[in-house]
Amino acid sequence: MEERKELKVSAIENGTVIDHIPAKSVFQVIHMLNLNESENQILFGTNLDSKKYGKKGIIKVSNRYFDSADVNKIALVAPTATLIEIKNFKVIRKQDVVIPDAVSRFVRCVNPNCITNHEEVITKFKVVNKKEIKLQCQYCEKTTNKENFSFK
Amino acid sequence: MEERKELKVSAIENGTVIDHIPAKSVFQVIHMLNLNESENQILFGTNLDSKKYGKKGIIKVSNRYFDSADVNKIALVAPTATLIEIKNFKVIRKQDVVIPDAVSRFVRCVNPNCITNHEEVITKFKVVNKKEIKLQCQYCEKTTNKENFSFK
Repeated sequence: MEERKELKVSAIENGTVIDHIPAKSVFQVIHMLNLNESENQILFGTNLDSKKYGKKGIIKVSNRYFDSADVNKIALVAPTATLIEIKNFKVIRKQDVVIPDAVSRFVRCVNPNCITNHEEVITKFKVVNKKEIKLQCQYCEKTTNKENFSFK
Repeated sequence: MEERKELKVSAIENGTVIDHIPAKSVFQVIHMLNLNESENQILFGTNLDSKKYGKKGIIKVSNRYFDSADVNKIALVAPTATLIEIKNFKVIRKQDVVIPDAVSRFVRCVNPNCITNHEEVITKFKVVNKKEIKLQCQYCEKTTNKENFSFK
């Protein structure tokens, strides 16, 4: 029975829980936040049952708190996400992510001919549809959809 | 306090636990087994404290058991891993992974000129060093090291 105990994963002491991530977006969130290269203790679950959303994912990162730039990133792929900040095992803050009006730097433009894909230019997009998450490039005006997201 | 409870992740009822994964290899194992596209319930942890290995990762996959081809894959990137099979919350089998003598199909050859990278040829390697995990291609004879692994 020794193994069973080891499988139990307890609540984190300090850090952030990203809850209510759409199950399909868990690995996108992980890569976007570079958690796959992090040295922090991280716990994830995906395809968990959720009353609200059917199937959800959850990510718990010890000893890390995310700034608003990171929260905006999360919002783009996981608009239903909730961030819960924990200190000494207590919830000190809980916030829903908010889809920003503009996005810069971390998303690539879908247009292979766009200048941002050829020169060292920071990408800039206007969020033209917040429901389906469509980003219009300020340089080439092409629209990048959620399905085509790739991150710098 | 409602959130704290939700963070608890209990043992799985049926499925496989892959334990004692080197912390740096957790995402390699996930991708190799295509768990990022799985619809099974999955729980992972990385950079967890381990008495034996310093930092370890653990992956728990509900309702899935791995065949020997998959176990061989795991061995290549996580030679210290233990697989624990669970039914009705009970451990029914526990095995250490074993590094195979030969590997075929799923690893790419590091040599860009190798025929396996240009034609529809299944890769075949001899495991020439089991400690550092070096694979010698049976076609071009070049050696692919663990650090250069990329998977088909």
